[in-house]
Amino acid sequence: MEKSSSKNIAIFISGRGSNFKSILDHINEINGEIKIVISNKNALGLNYAKEKNIQTLISNDFEKISSIMEELNIDLIVLAGYLKILPKNFVKKFFGKIINIHPSLIPSFCGKNFYGEKVHEAAINRGVRYSGCTTHFVSDVVDGGPIILQKTVEVSQNDTPKTLAEKILIEEHKIIVESVKLFCDDLLTIKGERVIIK
Amino acid sequence: MEKSSSKNIAIFISGRGSNFKSILDHINEINGEIKIVISNKNALGLNYAKEKNIQTLISNDFEKISSIMEELNIDLIVLAGYLKILPKNFVKKFFGKIINIHPSLIPSFCGKNFYGEKVHEAAINRGVRYSGCTTHFVSDVVDGGPIILQKTVEVSQNDTPKTLAEKILIEEHKIIVESVKLFCDDLLTIKGERVIIK
Repeated sequence: MEKSSSKNIAIFISGRGSNFKSILDHINEINGEIKIVISNKNALGLNYAKEKNIQTLISNDFEKISSIMEELNIDLIVLAGYLKILPKNFVKKFFGKIINIHPSLIPSFCGKNFYGEKVHEAAINRGVRYSGCTTHFVSDVVDGGPIILQKTVEVSQNDTPKTLAEKILIEEHKIIVESVKLFCDDLLTIKGERVIIK
Repeated sequence: MEKSSSKNIAIFISGRGSNFKSILDHINEINGEIKIVISNKNALGLNYAKEKNIQTLISNDFEKISSIMEELNIDLIVLAGYLKILPKNFVKKFFGKIINIHPSLIPSFCGKNFYGEKVHEAAINRGVRYSGCTTHFVSDVVDGGPIILQKTVEVSQNDTPKTLAEKILIEEHKIIVESVKLFCDDLLTIKGERVIIK
């Protein structure tokens, strides 16, 4: 099998960027390179990018962001704890090239009302015995795109939103890396609402 | 700890009753007795009840069913593949005493549009990597009551609704037995939307 060409990756973050760090920690196993880290605000994770001499940008101007994606020949955009909803035309333009990670077993506890700790609060209040995390391609339905990978996490009766978030984050770090790897090796195909892994 | 008194169980079925059989196969481990098997139609599973000399009834008259529940001092009603939606006043009267099993990870793929193979078809079409099954107390929201137990099942890319149903059914048999055991040992407490297992 022909080796796929190395991919140019952009990472979008809004917080401390732990999923971004996880990708960076495993970059040697990934057939790609992080070209830029973009945030909608002065996010803590940007510092880490700067330390690693990765270009950073704070912007909410999606025409500008779109131009930069093209200038840098970005193949893959990873939303790694990015809490802003992307404009529809941006999503349309880059469909199949944007991966998001969400801390629940989609289709449970997802959509625009479930962000940050609210997801875990909802899971605990509903009394589910399992939650987890999901990577998916971004479509114009919030958290509604084709699912790449999922991982389940047991919810214990003593869990708080905080402890559940911590347990799930450990699994997020694994599936985000694995999803980026699969993408960069050209092993993901979108078929309708499903993702087929070759 | 004082041993709880033996519970009188009614089972409601609509099909072959494999979850009913599973309970019966483990009845020696359960602090209870199956007093009657009720179906909304001439279900295959009724034959198995007759073989085991368990009283059976085919009825859709919930006033009659309600009277029988009282006459037999029923403590627990188990909906084991019962595909009819119970009348609201029946649910209200027996709230906390009716357990249902649903072949998905509630709140995913549940509600009145997801019954039989439709659940599994929806899961496969959505491309989820995990599905599973859930036991819960019945409330007036279809599949919306407090969750007792769940079990996850991996969905493979080659799964059909049929093969997925088969894999999940194996786990259903386990959690329905375990849930009935817990109930009959007085180990389940409903707190709001949650079930606490002592």
